[in-house]
Amino acid sequence: MPTLLLNASEVVTCEGPPRARRAPEMTDAGVRANAAVAMGDDGRILAVGPDRELRAQYPGSAEIDCARGVLTPGFVDSHTHAIFGRSRHAEQELRAAGVGYMEIAKRGGGIHSSVRDLRERSEDELVALAASRLARLAAHGSTTIEVKSGYGLSLESELRTLRVIRRLAAELPVRLVPTFLGAHEIPLEYREAPRTREDYIALLVEEMLPAVARESLARFCDIFCEPGVYSAAEARRILGAARGHGMALKLHADELEHAGAAELAAEIGATSADHLAAVSELGIKALAASGTVATLLPGTMLFLGRSKQAPARAMLDAGCAIALASDFNPGTSPTVNFPLILTLGVSQLRLSVAEAFVAATVNGAAALGLAHEIGQLAPGFSADVALFDVEDHREIPYWYGDHRCVATWVRGRKVLPAGQWKT
Amino acid sequence: MPTLLLNASEVVTCEGPPRARRAPEMTDAGVRANAAVAMGDDGRILAVGPDRELRAQYPGSAEIDCARGVLTPGFVDSHTHAIFGRSRHAEQELRAAGVGYMEIAKRGGGIHSSVRDLRERSEDELVALAASRLARLAAHGSTTIEVKSGYGLSLESELRTLRVIRRLAAELPVRLVPTFLGAHEIPLEYREAPRTREDYIALLVEEMLPAVARESLARFCDIFCEPGVYSAAEARRILGAARGHGMALKLHADELEHAGAAELAAEIGATSADHLAAVSELGIKALAASGTVATLLPGTMLFLGRSKQAPARAMLDAGCAIALASDFNPGTSPTVNFPLILTLGVSQLRLSVAEAFVAATVNGAAALGLAHEIGQLAPGFSADVALFDVEDHREIPYWYGDHRCVATWVRGRKVLPAGQWKT
Ligand SMILES: [Zn+2]
Ligand SMILES: [Zn+2]
Repeated sequence: MPTLLLNASEVVTCEGPPRARRAPEMTDAGVRANAAVAMGDDGRILAVGPDRELRAQYPGSAEIDCARGVLTPGFVDSHTHAIFGRSRHAEQELRAAGVGYMEIAKRGGGIHSSVRDLRERSEDELVALAASRLARLAAHGSTTIEVKSGYGLSLESELRTLRVIRRLAAELPVRLVPTFLGAHEIPLEYREAPRTREDYIALLVEEMLPAVARESLARFCDIFCEPGVYSAAEARRILGAARGHGMALKLHADELEHAGAAELAAEIGATSADHLAAVSELGIKALAASGTVATLLPGTMLFLGRSKQAPARAMLDAGCAIALASDFNPGTSPTVNFPLILTLGVSQLRLSVAEAFVAATVNGAAALGLAHEIGQLAPGFSADVALFDVEDHREIPYWYGDHRCVATWVRGRKVLPAGQWKT
Repeated sequence: MPTLLLNASEVVTCEGPPRARRAPEMTDAGVRANAAVAMGDDGRILAVGPDRELRAQYPGSAEIDCARGVLTPGFVDSHTHAIFGRSRHAEQELRAAGVGYMEIAKRGGGIHSSVRDLRERSEDELVALAASRLARLAAHGSTTIEVKSGYGLSLESELRTLRVIRRLAAELPVRLVPTFLGAHEIPLEYREAPRTREDYIALLVEEMLPAVARESLARFCDIFCEPGVYSAAEARRILGAARGHGMALKLHADELEHAGAAELAAEIGATSADHLAAVSELGIKALAASGTVATLLPGTMLFLGRSKQAPARAMLDAGCAIALASDFNPGTSPTVNFPLILTLGVSQLRLSVAEAFVAATVNGAAALGLAHEIGQLAPGFSADVALFDVEDHREIPYWYGDHRCVATWVRGRKVLPAGQWKT
């Protein structure tokens, strides 16, 4: 029996070609006033149209009253680090006080504190912690969430993290996409003799990647390509090996300093290059000429107190396909509120509201290689839907910081409140 | 029968002198681990102390389990424009696209569109609209909310706005503080012959202020003192008249351009000077030497996409007392999420978490002349309390954009969810 979502004031369909969109295609979010959505038994959208038409077309359907709210495709959050132990709230005010990254690390903070912490936790503990955090992301309208490993940095703890993601993907009502980020950093134990960074890279290439591939634990391989972390040459080697194992590729590219990572992403055909606050002119041109999605994470720059954001308008003008994501992680972007990312997309990156919606749905899906399946409210697409308590879709970025999402559906099934999630 | 709030992981007391605090007094938010709060029948705090002690001291009390959450004084949001008609979501993307203030006004936006809109609405309509917005502010932890008029700009519609606030103050479970802001702008009908801006100022001084005072409709008189709106000389005249009617004074001061408004606020003994992103060195010195609270509104600069924030650290170093507020309004800061303002206080203004909490409670109270009554969880203060689903108070600014407030009490009585508010 189909289910009809009726009495919506607007449906943001994002209807169009099932691939990454660029300007000017991004300027149309396919908003339809007074439309309804029909979801089929197979979890796919049957149709979008006037209430009366859909009622006539699918008699005897279940009916859900949207109370004049706005329906959108569930957000596709294509960049998160949602598997971690403790929160790192102490670092926020240290950073604000001008305490540097090295000093924060010395005081027990920074990424290595998350690594120490995660390594000591059991799979069950990590599942429980992540489930409650993913529930909060879902509560704000995200229905697909990419999740990276990268706080393990050892064969055993990276595999454990990816198995946690696999369990969560099977058990939770949201759609998860697993990414292997063993190259998030060089672990501390590979920074002093007898072990070297080259040893860690060898471990990545010769043991970790094959093991991840053997269990089919990751759809993507990602790397933190930034001066002082992994060089472009190292990224080329590691991602080349990942491709050999059948993984698609992502890069943390040019976040704070230019490293030629955007250029590399385009050259090797990465699915996405993410961050890009320090991207070069050449990097922009390379991305524009490629099939790589440029994923922007404006929340991170806000939370870090940086005034510089990625040059989104220049990227759009050059022809880049832009996606927006939360970068949800304990160090630099602990937000679960995707609509706030839309706000920052407009107010900080100067996207139009339509561009921000396409970036958060169709282009987020493209950044996960799923543009044929999710990101649109159009016939045949998965019925991944979010309902907001607003009358006009432009209110979703406008009422910044509020919690306006009142319901979501994934594959046509209502996502229950977190308290009712089974893990 | 007293009520005990038990099993909290922390209580942020903000205990201390009942007046505006300056550095270094602001660096201590009086956080007590594993404490409980006893609220008396008279709506005041009886005591803060270990669970066991309070249970022994107040046997037979009602008990509420805080489930290891964090208790704080309810936030004192000392600057909002919560009485308005339509939202102005269309302006956000116009502004992002570089469309100027004048052009937005020409296309039907800007403050004058809110004025046109409000003038056409009945008292009942405005009550209903504001009640749902105030409920959202309360849901994020604000228990005292200052509310300004200023979208009427005529004798009749300003009085109507203030009567709306009076009704809401009587009917709603939160504490409201009314401010007359007839000098928010010069209304359009006073910009062309035969009527002049001087005529409007005469109306303000000779008719509006006396009428507001006659009905005791406002505790404060505020003015938008900024180049192109009201000059410092005009502000001096209008606020002088307001003082003559027994009102306390506030100024919208030096928001985008310096107008000497901070200096004026200090000189005339205003209770607060608000915004201050463009305050001068002299203005900072004048505020530091005065009893005027410097109220900072970092959400506004974020939403407007401005990179410049008020020089909070310089102000603290100089000795200013700083408060934080939301500036909730339809044009430049449509947020109801006070914890997000704390986030911006730390990440953008570089306050410590303790400074941000004191700014949001004790100093917000001082900005409303209520520091003897609210803003602290200490014996004798009103039992205005917020409960957050976090273990450490630093998580409240940290999980930015999330909705972690799970309950509030005003005068010891639980604030019910908005659906159960009677208006
Ligand atoms: Zn990342
Ligand atoms: Zn204001």
